[in-house]
Amino acid sequence: MPELRKDPIISRWVIISTERGKRPSSFSPPARKTHDDFCPLCPGNEDKTPPEVFAHRPSGSLPNTPGWNLRVVPNKFPALRIEGELDRRGEGIYDKMNGVGAHEVIIECPDHDATLASVSAEHFEKVLLSYRDRMNELYRDRRFKYMAIFRNQGEVAGASLAHPHSQIIALPIVPRRVMEELEGSRAYFNYKERCVFCDIIRQEKEHGMRVVNENREFIALTPFASRFPFEIWILPKHHSSSFEDIPHFHYASLAELFSDTLKRLSLCLNDPPYNFMLHTSPVSEKLNDYYHWHFEIIPRLTRVAGFEWGSGFYINPTAPEDAAQILRETPPAPAAP
Amino acid sequence: MPELRKDPIISRWVIISTERGKRPSSFSPPARKTHDDFCPLCPGNEDKTPPEVFAHRPSGSLPNTPGWNLRVVPNKFPALRIEGELDRRGEGIYDKMNGVGAHEVIIECPDHDATLASVSAEHFEKVLLSYRDRMNELYRDRRFKYMAIFRNQGEVAGASLAHPHSQIIALPIVPRRVMEELEGSRAYFNYKERCVFCDIIRQEKEHGMRVVNENREFIALTPFASRFPFEIWILPKHHSSSFEDIPHFHYASLAELFSDTLKRLSLCLNDPPYNFMLHTSPVSEKLNDYYHWHFEIIPRLTRVAGFEWGSGFYINPTAPEDAAQILRETPPAPAAP
Repeated sequence: MPELRKDPIISRWVIISTERGKRPSSFSPPARKTHDDFCPLCPGNEDKTPPEVFAHRPSGSLPNTPGWNLRVVPNKFPALRIEGELDRRGEGIYDKMNGVGAHEVIIECPDHDATLASVSAEHFEKVLLSYRDRMNELYRDRRFKYMAIFRNQGEVAGASLAHPHSQIIALPIVPRRVMEELEGSRAYFNYKERCVFCDIIRQEKEHGMRVVNENREFIALTPFASRFPFEIWILPKHHSSSFEDIPHFHYASLAELFSDTLKRLSLCLNDPPYNFMLHTSPVSEKLNDYYHWHFEIIPRLTRVAGFEWGSGFYINPTAPEDAAQILRETPPAPAAP
Repeated sequence: MPELRKDPIISRWVIISTERGKRPSSFSPPARKTHDDFCPLCPGNEDKTPPEVFAHRPSGSLPNTPGWNLRVVPNKFPALRIEGELDRRGEGIYDKMNGVGAHEVIIECPDHDATLASVSAEHFEKVLLSYRDRMNELYRDRRFKYMAIFRNQGEVAGASLAHPHSQIIALPIVPRRVMEELEGSRAYFNYKERCVFCDIIRQEKEHGMRVVNENREFIALTPFASRFPFEIWILPKHHSSSFEDIPHFHYASLAELFSDTLKRLSLCLNDPPYNFMLHTSPVSEKLNDYYHWHFEIIPRLTRVAGFEWGSGFYINPTAPEDAAQILRETPPAPAAP
């Protein structure tokens, strides 16, 4: 059983998941995968994943057979386990609990070689709606306090399978970074009676220099204190505290802007590896005035940034204004067929 | 001039240092360096670095000529600049200041192919003493609030030059991670009237399973909530709040344990890339009862950990107890000649 352990100094929970077992010998770099390698996420190999929990299929198509457009399956090597009680307990001065949670893989499309920058905005919307639907479904389990939704694009960014996919981890705790953002934005609200993200958006729209693109409902910008070159945040323009509760038609609008942003990033930096993660309110405080959900996209461009890993001390060699300008001036890609 | 910018949500300062200039085209992976490449840190090339600010030399040997055993020079491409005023100011809702600071390179030894795992414990002590001496010297400048001392071993860990070296960045702010640790340990102290690190050491010594090695003054252990496989902390056994103020003879003892730990890591994981960083009290609260200085060593073993980069959400596939056992059972290397 994986374990959740709390650092006693800064109260950060960490998942110790040894069932994915790594011995020293297993840390040598993996052989580079080719497209000829067997892919368990491709159509025809549905029996190589755990049975699907959700899919977009034409009517009449059977579960766990080809024909799907998008498919969600439990992770075969989950970081957390769905069964059992949390069993919070101490170990001397330490705190821990069982690694209870869910870990699902959203197989975004059947095409092994597609990326979120290459699929149509319509298909992108399906991916976003699948995030929402899985969140809402998983939150029915009251053990879960937060849904971490993220995507690793490219091997350098930690993707162990090349087939386009996102991941969702249902957690019995709220991750420290999310806690920090909640606390910080609550403190700002207590002082100003305004949402700090709303204030950021207002100022960025006025200045324009860090805006990548925007539409009626959403804006993409490079944050003032970007940690990484070409770091991009995508936010709703009007206050909204939880991703899964926005009006249905907003997902299409988000897909349009998100898709355009990833296309620009891909064109401008030659399909870089990246991670993105959804930052949204925990289920216990879904609707509030202080926190503003958003996606954070972090291209993995610099080795130099390596040191920052785990130290919280960042040196960014690219001004966000420069990154935004380059991204703005990148001609948008032609629409996917 | 580089800029220090504060994230308005979680108050994290970031260095935007565009003079080290990266345009999109410069993000392609660098060609792998060979030993035949020119090394500006090797003996004979002293004129290729800024003039030295400190060195271990036999008497009679001239500055900036060969003959040194250890040499400290300003970084040729500093993340921060030594000249100028901080000039703290706002930009609408944002806060920033000039990127004033010092950035020095500690060239640890003349031998290009040495590592801290291969040099003698006596030489390692010289490196540690140079950290202390440069800290004390740089703290004479009252603009500086914190010294970040760190080392990147291996290209994967961000080392841009293969020649063994550490770095010291004198900062006009205290990095967020250090702040968090100070706050966390202060809160623990307020509650328990004990140092949380002292409590950790007491418990770890009792259980033994996460202890890598120890001597009279120092202990190396894999922390209970390790973020990364084979993460190791080295701490003084008795309460001590700042690295630069320990008794002189303790540096030899630290060098002995640190050296043994890196040798074990190197043998057991085949010379892995790693980062280490000193965590110590800021100059403004050097002597206190709640914070306990230590080194954190983070081997760079997993790509999987990539996602954690910037998200604060960690999944560790190796239990720290297992890592400690493997490191304990690794036969210590023969002493260097």
